[in-house]
Amino acid sequence: MRIAVLGTGRVGQTLAARLAELGHAVTVGTRDVATASARSEPDTFGNPPFPEWRTHHPDIDLAGFADAAAGAELVVNATNGAGSIAALEAAGEEHLAGKVLVDVSNPLDFSRGMPPSLLVSNTDSLAEQIQRRFPATRVVKALNTVNANLMVDPRQLAGGDHSVFVSGDDPDAKAQVTELLESFGWSDVVDLGDITTARGTEMYLPLWVRLSATLGTPMFTIKVVR
Amino acid sequence: MRIAVLGTGRVGQTLAARLAELGHAVTVGTRDVATASARSEPDTFGNPPFPEWRTHHPDIDLAGFADAAAGAELVVNATNGAGSIAALEAAGEEHLAGKVLVDVSNPLDFSRGMPPSLLVSNTDSLAEQIQRRFPATRVVKALNTVNANLMVDPRQLAGGDHSVFVSGDDPDAKAQVTELLESFGWSDVVDLGDITTARGTEMYLPLWVRLSATLGTPMFTIKVVR
Repeated sequence: MRIAVLGTGRVGQTLAARLAELGHAVTVGTRDVATASARSEPDTFGNPPFPEWRTHHPDIDLAGFADAAAGAELVVNATNGAGSIAALEAAGEEHLAGKVLVDVSNPLDFSRGMPPSLLVSNTDSLAEQIQRRFPATRVVKALNTVNANLMVDPRQLAGGDHSVFVSGDDPDAKAQVTELLESFGWSDVVDLGDITTARGTEMYLPLWVRLSATLGTPMFTIKVVR
Repeated sequence: MRIAVLGTGRVGQTLAARLAELGHAVTVGTRDVATASARSEPDTFGNPPFPEWRTHHPDIDLAGFADAAAGAELVVNATNGAGSIAALEAAGEEHLAGKVLVDVSNPLDFSRGMPPSLLVSNTDSLAEQIQRRFPATRVVKALNTVNANLMVDPRQLAGGDHSVFVSGDDPDAKAQVTELLESFGWSDVVDLGDITTARGTEMYLPLWVRLSATLGTPMFTIKVVR
């Protein structure tokens, strides 16, 4: 499948690499190709600059948000949650219309320091904001409850014996995303319901952040035991 | 130990019965003893009225909030989250001072219908509100992530192979509550940190509510896989 991964950060890189490895034609979308290509410093988490990552993935294209989305059959939003709506607007409503958009972002607010709070919560969610702003797009919230490495390779932890969630209004879109998650190695994909259920997984983030601090690692997740 | 369980609902009943079974001297606290003793209708969830439950637990005392708290070494807040501060004020700051208060409540807001939202979230939590209002009390948030039946008997699900959390500012209080949880059968008690980490477990509730609807049962929980 032709897939656009919007976002050049660690999450975007990890998803793009895995999708390419699985045989998809992947384009990473960025706000400004020249800027992304010129980066020479590690990011705030100490990861290598994007151009260095690219040298290891010559099969993955780089394009502006709009070009990346225009050429894709399925789009992944791996941009920073605080800037996701703006990034998707740059991608263009017409380039997202009718397509499945996998939203893996979280509306984290680091402006008050650590731990982050949420920019939107309780009676709304970022996924719903995106769905309302792009009504012709089939938004599916997924993977936002786990670290990037686990997103694409869940079996590296406890043999994959843990859970991931999908939320969305379009059953076919959720089925398509579930298939994609299964191709990553996920075996317990829980369909929570419509897009409003993304409030649940986004509001799980404060627990995730505290657990990560307590456990001293982001390489953990939850299993729904029933 | 002499334990007061504040709240005559399903959660209070279940905790009181289990604590008595484990040999503790239990008093259930209520706003008004006469009213609680006169109830003859099932509650909104169809559970038998409180007096009927009492006939099966003659070893458990019933008292007003203040008398129950005054006589206890440890207090459990099993009142409705929306009324918890008022209930604890009725119990009396002086009767709670210096004591461990296990807060199992959730600040659920049903005023907009189902699913509930939270009355407080993101940058504050009910547990923090209680701790601020009763600074001499040693508040420990716990058990609010599971159904009442699982709270007191976790081994009935997957042999107890799942997780529960404690949040609080007082390490000794958390150790005491952890011991109590272990006596219920919990084996994975995760200490999240100070009382602000209760935001995490309270904000998990929207996910819990959606999962319960999806799974068709409240008899589930999560295991932290690491």
